[in-house]
Amino acid sequence: MSLTTLTTGAAGFIGSHTVLELFEAGHNVICVDNCCNAYHDKNESLPESLKRVEDITGKKVTFYSVDIRDKKALDSVFKKHKIDCVIHFAALKAVGESCRLPLQYYQNNITGTSVLLEVMADNEVYNFVYSSSATVYGDPTFLPLTEDHPTGNCTNPYGKSKYFTEEILKDLCASDKNWNVISLRYFNPVGAHKSGRIGEDPNGEPNNLMPYISQVAVGKRQLLKVFGNDWPTHDGTGVRDYIHIVDLAQGHLSALSKLLKGGTTGYAVYNLGTGVGYSVLDMVKNFSIACGKNIAYEFAPRREGDIASCYASTEKAADELGWKSKLGLKEMCEDTWRWQKNNPNGFAGLKSDL
Amino acid sequence: MSLTTLTTGAAGFIGSHTVLELFEAGHNVICVDNCCNAYHDKNESLPESLKRVEDITGKKVTFYSVDIRDKKALDSVFKKHKIDCVIHFAALKAVGESCRLPLQYYQNNITGTSVLLEVMADNEVYNFVYSSSATVYGDPTFLPLTEDHPTGNCTNPYGKSKYFTEEILKDLCASDKNWNVISLRYFNPVGAHKSGRIGEDPNGEPNNLMPYISQVAVGKRQLLKVFGNDWPTHDGTGVRDYIHIVDLAQGHLSALSKLLKGGTTGYAVYNLGTGVGYSVLDMVKNFSIACGKNIAYEFAPRREGDIASCYASTEKAADELGWKSKLGLKEMCEDTWRWQKNNPNGFAGLKSDL
Repeated sequence: MSLTTLTTGAAGFIGSHTVLELFEAGHNVICVDNCCNAYHDKNESLPESLKRVEDITGKKVTFYSVDIRDKKALDSVFKKHKIDCVIHFAALKAVGESCRLPLQYYQNNITGTSVLLEVMADNEVYNFVYSSSATVYGDPTFLPLTEDHPTGNCTNPYGKSKYFTEEILKDLCASDKNWNVISLRYFNPVGAHKSGRIGEDPNGEPNNLMPYISQVAVGKRQLLKVFGNDWPTHDGTGVRDYIHIVDLAQGHLSALSKLLKGGTTGYAVYNLGTGVGYSVLDMVKNFSIACGKNIAYEFAPRREGDIASCYASTEKAADELGWKSKLGLKEMCEDTWRWQKNNPNGFAGLKSDL
Repeated sequence: MSLTTLTTGAAGFIGSHTVLELFEAGHNVICVDNCCNAYHDKNESLPESLKRVEDITGKKVTFYSVDIRDKKALDSVFKKHKIDCVIHFAALKAVGESCRLPLQYYQNNITGTSVLLEVMADNEVYNFVYSSSATVYGDPTFLPLTEDHPTGNCTNPYGKSKYFTEEILKDLCASDKNWNVISLRYFNPVGAHKSGRIGEDPNGEPNNLMPYISQVAVGKRQLLKVFGNDWPTHDGTGVRDYIHIVDLAQGHLSALSKLLKGGTTGYAVYNLGTGVGYSVLDMVKNFSIACGKNIAYEFAPRREGDIASCYASTEKAADELGWKSKLGLKEMCEDTWRWQKNNPNGFAGLKSDL
């Protein structure tokens, strides 16, 4: 069954990889992004990531440069297409920045989602997949994290904006039986598409480990700082559940099938993780092997708000979505490295890089 | 010191009583309201409640019919006046309605507040008093409720919108030292101004106990339903901390003094309650005495989400704001009855009533 999906934040890391998988599965995709965080050469009709998705898939991308808080502009997109489902990636996502600019985070992430939901209801589109995050669990009281672990003890505006939005979605589904909503709680997405042509392209200093390591490997950064070597983990460094971006993207297709088959009613939540935790030093070691270089690092004190370990229970997604991650640490590192090596300056560096 | 306060939701129950007290204390008040919940005869320049505040005080009300989500309109109000402080009442407030219309509640209460805060920052106004609620405490784990009781276990969108907004304010103050914010957690406001000319004017069936009792007394409703007579309280009915609206209004003036004297830095929270809990049957009995009539009632099953008892610790407000409630249950009942008797149909019924 070919579906028409409207994808917000389509030009981002997770967005672009999901658009690619949607195309590969034969679906139509309407892409929306304000490109506040994605490279878009104004002489081009598409942001660079989506141009490359066109190249890779041979499909034509339908793109609207729209801010989801602009209700009128968003509504006009819905009026032009018959949308079956919305996959909502658009959000600000940097923890540190969210502490400096909380209002911007709340306005983008909560107001933005609320406006999108209003426009959907106005246009009688009630199928919704939401980009949530394992951050909603706060500091884990048990591991692996099952979907019924308590949520809400978030320590920063980014995390709170994800948690608050989940609550809004839950309330919305309780208020109106038309809605079918799945929140996908992402663990730590890494890797890149096999082609090496799309990948994670952080602005400035990366907030996440994997882009940091790969920028050290490619010579853009001197040294990785490892925050804490006295955590209660196998080697003292923090443990996370890293998941390959292509696996993650495919999780959205599984969620989509579930929604569109009428397999859910109301609100449901699924973890997207591998169930396996790797430490910072595990990642450094494996990335070194993949790129054939030493990754220089030094230990630094723990950061406030960090936690020791975090990894997913994958049972519910396997049982109810029929989805499981397939790609291992080796692919995560090799694919990240291929993207980084081919695009040392990300999407903006295209002309000089290739 | 005469201050200029911008008051949102100025035409509402708490808003109008606070505007009156601000005038009586010699302050200037700029009133903003979209009147989605307040009677405004379009042939008149003012909503009825504020017209009466003019009559009572002899002061001239400056009023703008503005929705706080309309950033441009709100900004133009800030450009016209030199504002010292904002007191922010504007919000939707009916628990049951919030379960039916969650998006409207989140948009009005969270997006609305966020837009207001953005406009304030744009205009370099950083003093803010927020209308919060004891509902942020959820089901009490101890009594009396002190300000450091955990918050956030709210069971309905109205309560969540208050809790989420408190978190946003806390994050905002942490991000920018210019801000001085006081959240006032209201317990159960009742009563009316001594004049009997302004008071609570619910749309349709009242959500709160006191207006319900007074509508039974005045013959508009037949019978009070008392939800649960098996609560663990002195007579089996639910116990709440009722506070006279004039006391509550004066609490805002104390908060204002604290803010403007530079007495706070960053974010602070205070309960506004009396510290004394009365049961539903206590209220019925005392209202009967005040109005000289029997109040018919019957018992009904408990409602989901209700709690047995809730009352405030008043120590922090006394110590730090120098504020304490002065009016007792007798005044609460007598003043409510004077308002109800003189205005059986609320503000809209003016012409036939007086």
